[in-house]
Amino acid sequence: MLENHIVTILLAEDNPGHARLIEKNLRRANINNEIVKFTDGKQVIDYLFEAADHFRLPLLVLLDLNLPVLSGYQVLKRMKSSPKTRNIPVVILTTTEEPHEVAHCYELGCNVYITKPVEYDEFCEAIRKLGLFLSIVKIPEREG
Amino acid sequence: MLENHIVTILLAEDNPGHARLIEKNLRRANINNEIVKFTDGKQVIDYLFEAADHFRLPLLVLLDLNLPVLSGYQVLKRMKSSPKTRNIPVVILTTTEEPHEVAHCYELGCNVYITKPVEYDEFCEAIRKLGLFLSIVKIPEREG
Repeated sequence: MLENHIVTILLAEDNPGHARLIEKNLRRANINNEIVKFTDGKQVIDYLFEAADHFRLPLLVLLDLNLPVLSGYQVLKRMKSSPKTRNIPVVILTTTEEPHEVAHCYELGCNVYITKPVEYDEFCEAIRKLGLFLSIVKIPEREG
Repeated sequence: MLENHIVTILLAEDNPGHARLIEKNLRRANINNEIVKFTDGKQVIDYLFEAADHFRLPLLVLLDLNLPVLSGYQVLKRMKSSPKTRNIPVVILTTTEEPHEVAHCYELGCNVYITKPVEYDEFCEAIRKLGLFLSIVKIPEREG
């Protein structure tokens, strides 16, 4: 996806330490796209459905589940049930690894579910692997 | 996902050279799960909907688009419209990189779309990155 430099990544993460580590390690994996950050689920919904016109929609969303105001589940459900946003790939990036939560997210239409390791080095390595993977993934291009 | 050793990967690929390279480079990335291989789309559908009971369903599908008999699109559409298979993550792994094909696959519900590079070293490296990524992805566990 990275050959397309207009691709914007939306990162929804309420822990500022995690947000910094995620951005830093995506950069280490040469993901140089713009990253738009939000710290609660309502900000994400407002951005996607009000502020962002068709051309400013992100082309990929990295979504924590445990967000304040509106949870990641609510954001995912809303995104995957709206024609405007349903084809934007959503990567769940969370500390929860309960099997029923994983299953629930796939039922709601998440594309990929990753857990954030608790240990610092493992956390960095997981994000680096995500970044390497993002460099080979094709995502739907913006039309029109 | 790899902590769960019963996870089986289904690989649908009609080019035997590509199938060998995919398996070899997944192994290089320490993906040691069983890989069940098919060379046309009808074999995949027959396996998923007839041969495999609930406990033998693969937990991940790597799907080429240009398969004989039934195409990867037909397999994807059938999988994502059936309750038995819709939550199995599908990674499209193909040589086609036309934007409308990419968009169509996401509309049909593919989880991730990757193109196979033409150049040998790049092909190997892309599969290795896929493998590293699979080592951190959580997928829905088999219930019951």
